[in-house]
Amino acid sequence: MATLTEGNWEQIAANKRSALAEQISLEYRIPSHLFPPDDQLDVTTFPKESGWFDERELEITESSATNILNKIASRSWTSEQVTRAFCKRAAAAQQLTNCLTDFFPTEAISIAKSLDEHLSKTGKLVGPLHGLPISLKDNFNIVGKDSTVGFASLVNQPAAYNSTLVDVLEKLGAVRFCKTNVPTAMMIAESVNNVFGRTVNPRNRKLTSGGSSGGESALITFGGSPLGVGTDIGGSLRIPAACTGIFTLRPSFGRFTTQNCRSGLAGQEAVMSVNGPMAMNLEDVIFYSKAVVDAQAWLMDPKVLPIPWRPVERKGKLRIAVLWNDGIVRPTPPVNRALNETVEKLKAAGHEIVGTWDPTLHRKGVELLARMFVADGGRSVQALLAPTQEPWRPEMQGYSEATELGTYDMWQLHLERSKFQKDYLEQWMSYGRLDAILAPTTPYATVAHGDFEYVGYTGVYNVVDYSAVSFPCGVSADKQKDLPSSDEHLSDICRNVHTKYDPDLVHGMPVSLQLVANRLEEEKVLVMTKSVLQAINPSSISSSISKLKAKF
Amino acid sequence: MATLTEGNWEQIAANKRSALAEQISLEYRIPSHLFPPDDQLDVTTFPKESGWFDERELEITESSATNILNKIASRSWTSEQVTRAFCKRAAAAQQLTNCLTDFFPTEAISIAKSLDEHLSKTGKLVGPLHGLPISLKDNFNIVGKDSTVGFASLVNQPAAYNSTLVDVLEKLGAVRFCKTNVPTAMMIAESVNNVFGRTVNPRNRKLTSGGSSGGESALITFGGSPLGVGTDIGGSLRIPAACTGIFTLRPSFGRFTTQNCRSGLAGQEAVMSVNGPMAMNLEDVIFYSKAVVDAQAWLMDPKVLPIPWRPVERKGKLRIAVLWNDGIVRPTPPVNRALNETVEKLKAAGHEIVGTWDPTLHRKGVELLARMFVADGGRSVQALLAPTQEPWRPEMQGYSEATELGTYDMWQLHLERSKFQKDYLEQWMSYGRLDAILAPTTPYATVAHGDFEYVGYTGVYNVVDYSAVSFPCGVSADKQKDLPSSDEHLSDICRNVHTKYDPDLVHGMPVSLQLVANRLEEEKVLVMTKSVLQAINPSSISSSISKLKAKF
Repeated sequence: MATLTEGNWEQIAANKRSALAEQISLEYRIPSHLFPPDDQLDVTTFPKESGWFDERELEITESSATNILNKIASRSWTSEQVTRAFCKRAAAAQQLTNCLTDFFPTEAISIAKSLDEHLSKTGKLVGPLHGLPISLKDNFNIVGKDSTVGFASLVNQPAAYNSTLVDVLEKLGAVRFCKTNVPTAMMIAESVNNVFGRTVNPRNRKLTSGGSSGGESALITFGGSPLGVGTDIGGSLRIPAACTGIFTLRPSFGRFTTQNCRSGLAGQEAVMSVNGPMAMNLEDVIFYSKAVVDAQAWLMDPKVLPIPWRPVERKGKLRIAVLWNDGIVRPTPPVNRALNETVEKLKAAGHEIVGTWDPTLHRKGVELLARMFVADGGRSVQALLAPTQEPWRPEMQGYSEATELGTYDMWQLHLERSKFQKDYLEQWMSYGRLDAILAPTTPYATVAHGDFEYVGYTGVYNVVDYSAVSFPCGVSADKQKDLPSSDEHLSDICRNVHTKYDPDLVHGMPVSLQLVANRLEEEKVLVMTKSVLQAINPSSISSSISKLKAKF
Repeated sequence: MATLTEGNWEQIAANKRSALAEQISLEYRIPSHLFPPDDQLDVTTFPKESGWFDERELEITESSATNILNKIASRSWTSEQVTRAFCKRAAAAQQLTNCLTDFFPTEAISIAKSLDEHLSKTGKLVGPLHGLPISLKDNFNIVGKDSTVGFASLVNQPAAYNSTLVDVLEKLGAVRFCKTNVPTAMMIAESVNNVFGRTVNPRNRKLTSGGSSGGESALITFGGSPLGVGTDIGGSLRIPAACTGIFTLRPSFGRFTTQNCRSGLAGQEAVMSVNGPMAMNLEDVIFYSKAVVDAQAWLMDPKVLPIPWRPVERKGKLRIAVLWNDGIVRPTPPVNRALNETVEKLKAAGHEIVGTWDPTLHRKGVELLARMFVADGGRSVQALLAPTQEPWRPEMQGYSEATELGTYDMWQLHLERSKFQKDYLEQWMSYGRLDAILAPTTPYATVAHGDFEYVGYTGVYNVVDYSAVSFPCGVSADKQKDLPSSDEHLSDICRNVHTKYDPDLVHGMPVSLQLVANRLEEEKVLVMTKSVLQAINPSSISSSISKLKAKF
């Protein structure tokens, strides 16, 4: 075990990576003759095509979380079977995308077995997540395990307590089995750090799976976890969900407990970090959200709001404003097309597009977020780099060069932020009854490693703390259709983003959008997303209706 | 009108006081032959005994707010009559206790008349507060009026906008007619500042009416307002309510809008200021609270939580823990006796005293609050003193001598505070189902001017943001019974408090206690206070029952 002596961050990191590799036992190592070549970009096909997974393993790991829970509840599958299958697939994901920071199948299988035993003995489930493997972003503390958030100085500093959410999930019956990679301090929009290196996108390994919850997005997209939990302070749930084409909910602060998690900017409260579920489908996101709110975490965490899960009726017509661009960075062509096509489908389904969301305020929101993140002059990050003389990553230049604010100036910044929140709400109310804003999640489908430059589309909603779902809208980047745009650039970043846009590189990548509801409208934004998905793909509903008919 | 030139704070203040005196027109000036002598300590008897008020004026100004609303709704009284009566009595209060910072009867009467006209024409009330005069603490902004919070530099700086609560109250039908005095920056527990001077307690003018909402408490106790709104960041609602023996609710942050109010420490968010109603009886506090929550201010103020008013059933037996002392300052003898007698009455009424609330954590809470208030090194206050070279008040030494924290250190302070909140909740949960803590509101009944030294009993609940009601418990200080205690002092402040305790001085003053519920349990703490009041005075209920019987 490495000790913290000066300047040994590289050795500590190398040892940690070796230790992690060792956690993948032989049974979980991809046989060398099946190992895909480094130049195979899309590895999501590996589980089915390699022959390494048996049919049951494939069936389990390609089921939705709610389906898995039903199968366990009805005793068609045991939690042990399910957990073993996901451990195997997660191990493969790690070997192909470098998405994990910890992996503990033995412990997971032991938990699964005891849940199976409980069900078998009592006939009862311990909770709504009985037996379901759930992956956790690296910053969730688990007793005895590291939460390094990418810092060498935090290697081999096992947590002395669980994050409250970890306790809640355990109580609900979930099986934890791995932790997932993040960028340094979780403050970069890709998942890369000096300890674990870089997570890649399983749909195209040249591209990023996003960040900071990009270990989760890679793992889930690969099928290595049916449901994961990430966090979001500037887009860290939505960006990785969008980069890989999966679903997530960014809740407003206070719905899901964040207590006792590791933060990269501990004690920073001007904009609050939140956590939320990530999954391959919306139903699983809804199921998790209700289960976690029903657990009444306000009895454990004083920051959780005592707001029970509030059923929302699905309305007929939604009133939606569209953020075509935020006035700073135009979406790249695939996102622009996806937004256009989605708007047309919404109209065709009878929803009301009340107009364009005027982006004038966004510039202020993006600026505020940037100032709040570096208000301590980067000292929080520096304090975690210093013990091992770990160098600043180039992506964090904004932190390394920042000047610390005094508390008086910080208070003035709070006032500016509150004014912004008020202005944003006033604009919202100016539409009369507005249900949601439809917006790009990011300007990109995804990007090559190192090219993710702009988090403004997500970050503004952290500043106002609105509830938002990022969802794949059914459109994929298409090099034939999505030619580089000749529209005027809105800013230098806009120019960079469009200069680097490469239709060939992102060809085939799914495009996601955000549906944004107001603050603390988690139930509503989830139900509205259902309506949007139905508008996008009306047959999905009619086919399930015909299935129902066939049944009776 | 004074202009802001260097060092002219005294002239500005003198001019402002003259202007305020001028706002009391001849009809509202107490005739000189009726004016009570300066050495008359209790002036609450003045309205009835002076003969200056006619019977109708007395009947109106001694009615509860809910009764007044009923009388207006049933057209027994007009809002104009009611408003004129309160304007007259408020003017008397000002002349006898110096409780106002602004007085605008002409405007108020004009609003009242238009409400009367509306009712008469349409047969409809504009809202649940139709026609009710409501007084406002100085820091609520009203277009065209000053909100100086005691600073000379803010004199003649009329507000360009209303506080959101002012808009809400207007929409509900309330009639604003005056603003009430505060200490400098609202950060002293008595109401004294360099502009308006000192507000005195109408029950005994040698004593303080508390602070920072001490203009309100003096005005309401005198009968000059049926309902007022104050604010609380360390006890500023509860302390003045307790010093005068009236009721108040300190809500958790997010229930009542605080948007666009003047703050003494603008942008400070480590502990949030809240506002709440103050009144002579609990029913009025409940009525106001429901009306304001029902107004859905979350559609105007992004910091308001979208939690509707939640009806709570009145339970039989309450489970209450008792904070006998906070481990730092023992309550003075009248408060100690009041707490003992109240506990006995609660037991007699069948409530369960689950034990003593262990005060070990309180020392940390009090320390945190003090550090958070001065984290900017007093710069916010200094910035308001500087323009007129207004001197620091001696009560604010802690601010004038403070050292500013950098943002990094402020973040560490946030972490300490969050840990404290968690520890406090864990202690709460350790009792199983705990309904409330019964605690002193302050160590005092009240004190001589300048002697209010300790806000720890209230301040701890600001740090944890719990909902709390301060209520007069039916016990008054009694020089025969409440002899100085010989108990060991818990601290230097404890020694000071008890050394200055003077049984003769506070003889006859009402004693208040706090009932503290958990965070965001406003409805529950109000209903529980009803039960406590019934336990204190069971006949109050049976007598109203017999009244009902007599009716039918």
